[in-house]
Amino acid sequence: MSFSALDSSMMARALQLAERGLWTTSPNPRVGCVLVRAGEIVGEGWHEKAGEPHAEVHALRAAGERARGATAYVTLEPCSHHGRTPPCAEALIAAGVARVVAAMGDPNPLVAGRGLTLLQAAGIETASGLLENEARELNIGFVSRMTRGRPWLRLKAAASLDGKTALNNGVSQWITGPDARRDGHRWRARACAVLTGVGTVRDDDPGLNVRDVDTPRQPLRVVVDSRLETPPTAKILAGGGTLIFAAVDDAERAARLRAAGAEIVFLPNPRGKVDLAALLQELGRRGINEVHAEAGSKLNGSLLREGLVDEFVFYLAPCLIGDDAAGLFSLPALTTLADKQALKILDLRQIGADIRLIARPS
Amino acid sequence: MSFSALDSSMMARALQLAERGLWTTSPNPRVGCVLVRAGEIVGEGWHEKAGEPHAEVHALRAAGERARGATAYVTLEPCSHHGRTPPCAEALIAAGVARVVAAMGDPNPLVAGRGLTLLQAAGIETASGLLENEARELNIGFVSRMTRGRPWLRLKAAASLDGKTALNNGVSQWITGPDARRDGHRWRARACAVLTGVGTVRDDDPGLNVRDVDTPRQPLRVVVDSRLETPPTAKILAGGGTLIFAAVDDAERAARLRAAGAEIVFLPNPRGKVDLAALLQELGRRGINEVHAEAGSKLNGSLLREGLVDEFVFYLAPCLIGDDAAGLFSLPALTTLADKQALKILDLRQIGADIRLIARPS
Repeated sequence: MSFSALDSSMMARALQLAERGLWTTSPNPRVGCVLVRAGEIVGEGWHEKAGEPHAEVHALRAAGERARGATAYVTLEPCSHHGRTPPCAEALIAAGVARVVAAMGDPNPLVAGRGLTLLQAAGIETASGLLENEARELNIGFVSRMTRGRPWLRLKAAASLDGKTALNNGVSQWITGPDARRDGHRWRARACAVLTGVGTVRDDDPGLNVRDVDTPRQPLRVVVDSRLETPPTAKILAGGGTLIFAAVDDAERAARLRAAGAEIVFLPNPRGKVDLAALLQELGRRGINEVHAEAGSKLNGSLLREGLVDEFVFYLAPCLIGDDAAGLFSLPALTTLADKQALKILDLRQIGADIRLIARPS
Repeated sequence: MSFSALDSSMMARALQLAERGLWTTSPNPRVGCVLVRAGEIVGEGWHEKAGEPHAEVHALRAAGERARGATAYVTLEPCSHHGRTPPCAEALIAAGVARVVAAMGDPNPLVAGRGLTLLQAAGIETASGLLENEARELNIGFVSRMTRGRPWLRLKAAASLDGKTALNNGVSQWITGPDARRDGHRWRARACAVLTGVGTVRDDDPGLNVRDVDTPRQPLRVVVDSRLETPPTAKILAGGGTLIFAAVDDAERAARLRAAGAEIVFLPNPRGKVDLAALLQELGRRGINEVHAEAGSKLNGSLLREGLVDEFVFYLAPCLIGDDAAGLFSLPALTTLADKQALKILDLRQIGADIRLIARPS
């Protein structure tokens, strides 16, 4: 399948529009749509919020009669089912568009292709796969949930150049500078949930809400706390709605935490700890697309060891702290370097005085 | 003082020439010279080796009669003293050059300015300070030795992204990939001496010679070995000439190491360890401009703690090893993050699959 330069630039525009929903669409995907007739944009739209019109509907409304004979560029295959809104494929057919180009198919393998098939059956020319990587990255959490049943887990950590996150007396705030911290809040803001461990809650008492950037919604806060040791006065409980995953029931502690507004879910594994894989499945079931983990070396190490980390965002501060301080990942001792966790670096840059590195398991 | 665009480009050319001596001029500085008359280059030269002609002499020979009335661009103030070769300032006067532009003055404060003064007294127009930073960086070791009496110490370390250099069973080769290792050999090659500790000698038995790149000379190998525990069969002794700094004399061990071709220097500090600051002064006395340290966390930590590290070259491999493994710097536990060693990042790039980071204490 070949695409023209106009096709590519219009899809790039649709992706730009889709990105506007970065912080609001979940559990839905971020989707943009551009309608083009005779080389001119006649309508644009993006999906803002679950329950509200999809990108295609916004674009069709903007185009009005000019949609007839137009090409629709959509960053995701138009939906074919009646959800909270009518199917977009039907709306595109009704508007008389001549051609639909999708960046990618529906990631849910059970429904993929149905939208395009519906369009083809109505005599509309269809194509898919234009800027597919970009579209997939934009909705990496949604794709993960649709294909694996669990969210995309992004682990954020800030350390010195020698890999130290805190002193051995627990002092940790702040290793990185204000620019890196603000960037960290941007990643938090795009996630549906922020995940941490009870050790971090006790040591640092973080709020784990989004502060340094504007956001229309706060992510769900999630604590891994096997024995319900989160103090009821912890900042992470403030405002209510925090989800605590535990392994050992303690009626009294549970009652105190519920009184502080927390929801408690018991998911023990055979070792009496929280079953982390099951935790992610549960978050997926609740419509969480992207999880942003900010934890200490213990939970970081467990997530890594169990193969649950999909992406790392490391901030390295230009300083050295020394071997005595707390590290990034608590892992069992390796006997050979072949057993190290290999990563692939996706992005490397300086942010303020610090270094930011984005990597994925390779 | 203002310089023309021609001045700048000619000095840049002179610096390029000077750089050809990167691996050969020590203990002398790397110096380049360009002679320009009526906008045309009439002679070029660079200093290759101590005892051989200086850059200016090569350029004057190339220019011949065309040096008369020319401007000489030199990356370092021309010498005014009779050393192993006659003073360059006199040669420039004799050749009838009209103007001399130096990138920087002689870094030795006791002789700085004499070359330019000599030229001025002969009626030659002089200027200094064009591309001075670049010139200073090129001879950073020579400048260090002239101004502080000790070499520039560059510490190279390779680690995983979580700051681990080796497993706790001592396995360390290789964390980084071939491109990063070759780059590391380039830094080794430009140094006059490679410094390591006896722990590294015992654990890794490195040759610490330059292998992956062509070099006309091998740096001096230097071991910090307080109690003369270097095995006489260690690879670092191969070929002879290795310098061992010790603190505790042991006649038998010393005799064995001398028999293996090593030179031993005793420089104890009050704690029975090698006095590292005195070690660097001794290397400076021996004409060592740049020291390349490749050691384990103990010697790295000691050098850092004593403020003897001037520059860091870190290679970070895209992998994670976990907290149980060996770290980069053994330092006393900090009680506050304000006590961390702050660094300034000079350069950050990817080399092969790894990351290279050049930093200096800030």
